[in-house]
Amino acid sequence: SHWEKLAWERLRSQIRPRGSLGRLEEMAARLGAIFRSVSPSVSRKIIFTMAGDHGVAEEGVSAYPQEVTAQMVFSFLKGWASINILADHVGAEVRVVDLGVASDLPEDWAVIRRKIGKGTRNITKGPAMERHEAVRGLVEGARLVMDAVQDEGFHLVGTGDMGIGNTTPSTAIVATLTGKPVKDLTGRGTGIDDAAWNRKVRAVERALAVNRPNAADPVDVLAKVGGYEIAGLAGAVLGAAAVRTPVVCDGFIATAGALIACQLAPFAKDYLFVSHRSQEVGHGAMIELLGLSPLLDLSMRLGEGTGAALAISLVEASARVLRDIKTFEEAGVTDTGR
Amino acid sequence: SHWEKLAWERLRSQIRPRGSLGRLEEMAARLGAIFRSVSPSVSRKIIFTMAGDHGVAEEGVSAYPQEVTAQMVFSFLKGWASINILADHVGAEVRVVDLGVASDLPEDWAVIRRKIGKGTRNITKGPAMERHEAVRGLVEGARLVMDAVQDEGFHLVGTGDMGIGNTTPSTAIVATLTGKPVKDLTGRGTGIDDAAWNRKVRAVERALAVNRPNAADPVDVLAKVGGYEIAGLAGAVLGAAAVRTPVVCDGFIATAGALIACQLAPFAKDYLFVSHRSQEVGHGAMIELLGLSPLLDLSMRLGEGTGAALAISLVEASARVLRDIKTFEEAGVTDTGR
Repeated sequence: SHWEKLAWERLRSQIRPRGSLGRLEEMAARLGAIFRSVSPSVSRKIIFTMAGDHGVAEEGVSAYPQEVTAQMVFSFLKGWASINILADHVGAEVRVVDLGVASDLPEDWAVIRRKIGKGTRNITKGPAMERHEAVRGLVEGARLVMDAVQDEGFHLVGTGDMGIGNTTPSTAIVATLTGKPVKDLTGRGTGIDDAAWNRKVRAVERALAVNRPNAADPVDVLAKVGGYEIAGLAGAVLGAAAVRTPVVCDGFIATAGALIACQLAPFAKDYLFVSHRSQEVGHGAMIELLGLSPLLDLSMRLGEGTGAALAISLVEASARVLRDIKTFEEAGVTDTGR
Repeated sequence: SHWEKLAWERLRSQIRPRGSLGRLEEMAARLGAIFRSVSPSVSRKIIFTMAGDHGVAEEGVSAYPQEVTAQMVFSFLKGWASINILADHVGAEVRVVDLGVASDLPEDWAVIRRKIGKGTRNITKGPAMERHEAVRGLVEGARLVMDAVQDEGFHLVGTGDMGIGNTTPSTAIVATLTGKPVKDLTGRGTGIDDAAWNRKVRAVERALAVNRPNAADPVDVLAKVGGYEIAGLAGAVLGAAAVRTPVVCDGFIATAGALIACQLAPFAKDYLFVSHRSQEVGHGAMIELLGLSPLLDLSMRLGEGTGAALAISLVEASARVLRDIKTFEEAGVTDTGR
């Protein structure tokens, strides 16, 4: 694009060897194109942590009981959890959205209430949700992001998840979209033992056999083997792209949502940054399908938006690189490099 | 150590799956041991960018003329350069030290003046400097860091370099310490063409043949094929270790300094964090010899301390992880994970 070209021209004229900032320059050029500017600002950052429960948890696929989803939502609201600490470190606000927690959250909790259902149904026995529920999740996620950008002026969005059992539907999504064997895509989630891992592989295989999700229809995949929070996470990516805003997705679950979004609207990929390479084994296949390289590789597998938070700082750094480093001409430095 | 054990106990009791923050946890445990605390603070951060010139530049081993070293020092002091922007982004102060710039820097420049010589001698013809000069560089670097920590209260130090031609002595150092073939360790520096690359390989080979640096004597290596700023960078690592302060080294040149430091005093490694994997080809051999994994891999090859700046933010994040994330007990979350 015109603005990407202008961004590269500025990057190449800065007082440093050409290309010496590597991936920061690639990001900077993308931000130039997104913001149509060679002096972008991404100082106002927001992370949406989307929460939902999963009927498939009853198959014993997680190390934690379902009640932990609501308990962690409470911790996010109190500012006690990993995402709060890492978001604060990078100067990002955190908003917690209930898309489908199994219990009614107390009225005095300051959670954003967009509950579509009290947990999905067990995907080993039928679809996770109705098709109209999946669409609603997409719309709610998109609207939250669009409002944050258009009404509140945020420049950059991060996505994160909370939902006990949600690596299982995410594995089903990537298995559907890539066609790869389930056992090659199934990881340890929050830290399950071999017996639970075997149950998880069988649960995903059964979910695919029972539901037969149509890989060519991303909403079908989302409805049959997805989750409420995954729908919200996919919607967030669509919403960011719709209002031309960079969006940084977290690890395995948030990337599953991003995949659905990019299958629905391939142009969304222009706005998407993959924060980190998750330790969850199936994440590699997701990244490969997206064709985007993660920014960090720190053996993390937490979710909540923690990887997104760390990567947001790198995206912001790349915006500052583009805008703030002076050119050879501006600085009066001898330029003999290529 | 006792404090490392206490740090791991706290990390394992936090409201998230065990081990889910991967390398942040490893760093957090190291910081626990360094600061003897499970609530460390690394909010005050400083980057020393050490500058020096190199007689070997006359062999045509760089894409830039020697005058650029002083010009870049001026840019650092003005706040115009990459390191200023990235250090500001992560909240770190930058101090620029003249250990051996070839020209007399104007009196009104606010550079820290520790000039040992006006550029090293050409290492293809004899030693870069006298042994007592190498020792002086080590002492100056160490003193700057120790004073910053002890007198000013900085918690964390980063190291970076500026010096036209300084990938050549750094290559000579890693070739001496690893015994690997020079051509496998020689990179493109600021972006040289094939002809300059061939000159660079020959220059390093000649430097080793003429000087015969003794790999078992790190000061000998530093004096014969190093540089004034590399001596300062090595000293900074020693100084940080002496006052029990974490030190984050930048890429190829700063890691060459860190290698010298760790050969002199192996315990210094306990305080050292390697910021990133440089695109400069010989950096991999340095990292292998140190036995430390870099935190970032963003295809950067700039120097100045730019990689250190980005990684400092990750080290600070890990300190916040250790200190601030609540435990299951504190938060009242059900703990059934392993």
